[in-house]
Amino acid sequence: MNILIIGAAGMVGRKLAQHLLTTGKLGNEAVDQITAFDVIPADLQATADGPSLDIRAGDIADRATVEAQVAERPDVIFHLAAIVSGEAEADFDKGYSINMDGTRHLFEAIRALPDYHPRVVYTSSIAVFGTPFEEPITDTFITAPLTSYGAQKMIGELLLNDYSRRGIFDGIGIRLPTIVVRPGKPNKAASGFFSGIIREPLAGIPAVLPVDDDVRHWVASPDSALGYLLHAATMDLAPVGPRRCLTMPGLSVTIADMLAALEEVAGPETAALVKREPDATIRAIVAGWPRDFNAARATELGFTTDASFQDIIRAHIRDTGHGAA
Amino acid sequence: MNILIIGAAGMVGRKLAQHLLTTGKLGNEAVDQITAFDVIPADLQATADGPSLDIRAGDIADRATVEAQVAERPDVIFHLAAIVSGEAEADFDKGYSINMDGTRHLFEAIRALPDYHPRVVYTSSIAVFGTPFEEPITDTFITAPLTSYGAQKMIGELLLNDYSRRGIFDGIGIRLPTIVVRPGKPNKAASGFFSGIIREPLAGIPAVLPVDDDVRHWVASPDSALGYLLHAATMDLAPVGPRRCLTMPGLSVTIADMLAALEEVAGPETAALVKREPDATIRAIVAGWPRDFNAARATELGFTTDASFQDIIRAHIRDTGHGAA
Repeated sequence: MNILIIGAAGMVGRKLAQHLLTTGKLGNEAVDQITAFDVIPADLQATADGPSLDIRAGDIADRATVEAQVAERPDVIFHLAAIVSGEAEADFDKGYSINMDGTRHLFEAIRALPDYHPRVVYTSSIAVFGTPFEEPITDTFITAPLTSYGAQKMIGELLLNDYSRRGIFDGIGIRLPTIVVRPGKPNKAASGFFSGIIREPLAGIPAVLPVDDDVRHWVASPDSALGYLLHAATMDLAPVGPRRCLTMPGLSVTIADMLAALEEVAGPETAALVKREPDATIRAIVAGWPRDFNAARATELGFTTDASFQDIIRAHIRDTGHGAA
Repeated sequence: MNILIIGAAGMVGRKLAQHLLTTGKLGNEAVDQITAFDVIPADLQATADGPSLDIRAGDIADRATVEAQVAERPDVIFHLAAIVSGEAEADFDKGYSINMDGTRHLFEAIRALPDYHPRVVYTSSIAVFGTPFEEPITDTFITAPLTSYGAQKMIGELLLNDYSRRGIFDGIGIRLPTIVVRPGKPNKAASGFFSGIIREPLAGIPAVLPVDDDVRHWVASPDSALGYLLHAATMDLAPVGPRRCLTMPGLSVTIADMLAALEEVAGPETAALVKREPDATIRAIVAGWPRDFNAARATELGFTTDASFQDIIRAHIRDTGHGAA
């Protein structure tokens, strides 16, 4: 089995690649080849006796570059590459050229190859939803985004549905919750503090909380994100029907819930490293984000998520060693 | 006032252009210049002392062509050009290149001009909705198209909302019902028979009805379509908010309603010219179309429609002379 990961240098893409390199399997099938593509070379190493690994760098806004990645006809393509919300809002051209054109280049490159119908797993976002929300948001709620990122992701969903309906490829879109706790450095997403208030205290560093304690948000762990991707790549798509893009299950938690869980798992001194510095701009952005979902379709189709926020924190401690007793 | 009509050779575009040429006004403002653009030269004549008329032909899939139309900074742009549903389904590339790329070229051409913020009126379609439907379909129903045409129109809506939100132009999208009675020749739309079963009998010609009498559909007259466009071009957009694309009011009528109205207005001999020839393919297509709407937002915002299907038939008789007693 030959697998292409577009966006392999990102947090989720790298986690996926590492998993495939380590296990050498996707579902029940052996993985022979992994192509790890991103705008920068992904920091990945092949394992002994594992799949062969080809690390490539390029720009998906360039159609020929995308065509070259698809030319070897990978069986499964994970398309995770995106300009994140804050940057897509700040740089109109960059957001559209990567998130919209890059996605279309991929879909067109597949269409151009005769007798080729790969599985395509596309990461979308809950940013496809805009206020006013129903609560919880169900699977039939209107997708009316209020950011450029959300519009671009939604355009990708429409294309994925249409190309799949026409039999060009076997597409499945997964709308990720905000991934918490992101390891490593903050990225440019406006949602970064949701990870920061857990990650930095566990590493013994103060963290800034720019919103109120009663702010509620929809989150899932990096492990859950990996699980969604693996399931999306291997599940039977026949029961999904023509609406191929699914809101993934997650946890609806308040900041207060998150901080209580942090104190429970890592102690009051760790939790005390969170400093409240309200920021009106970030508060306004976050007020436009969905808070709770009923991800019934995805759950019925076998997607699973974290049992509790405490478990999310414990998984981060296990993965990083930070905050371990 | 300088007005650009893209898609001026189509039925609705031509009706709009003729209205503006005849009245010389859009709302309370005098129209000085009308540019009538389409893929073929529109069959239009300037009126004595009316606005000047510039008839142009070109391909909106070509970005430079679109830029040239916008270079003179029209105050209002009507974007009506589209590959219709049946053709967009039959010709994948043509549908995407006109309906998606052409629309984006227009929006980008506007964005490229500094200090330019025209009113943009975009005709969308109820094809942005896909089964299973709520009935009637309300303004917050999910837009999940099941055709390439519907996907392309929805992508146009997402772009219009985002460009408007960012202040690039003042956009308003109007989702047209099926326009009945279309004058002239059938076009390639699969919905053509809804006009045919009225238009041909009024002209003394037999017409084929490919679906059952209990099929229900959402329709409006060409006069209503003109009314939507004029209102969209002149209304205050402040109360519309960020969801700029509105389902237009219309009439939900069954084939039986339509034929009864035809008999009432034009007599049983005319109605008897409709021949039932069920066509499984067309029946299947039509089964996927929405049947009834509650167009509350558009109605609150001042859009109006026909009082009855009898009125729609009478307007067609008045306009064409066909079927007049």
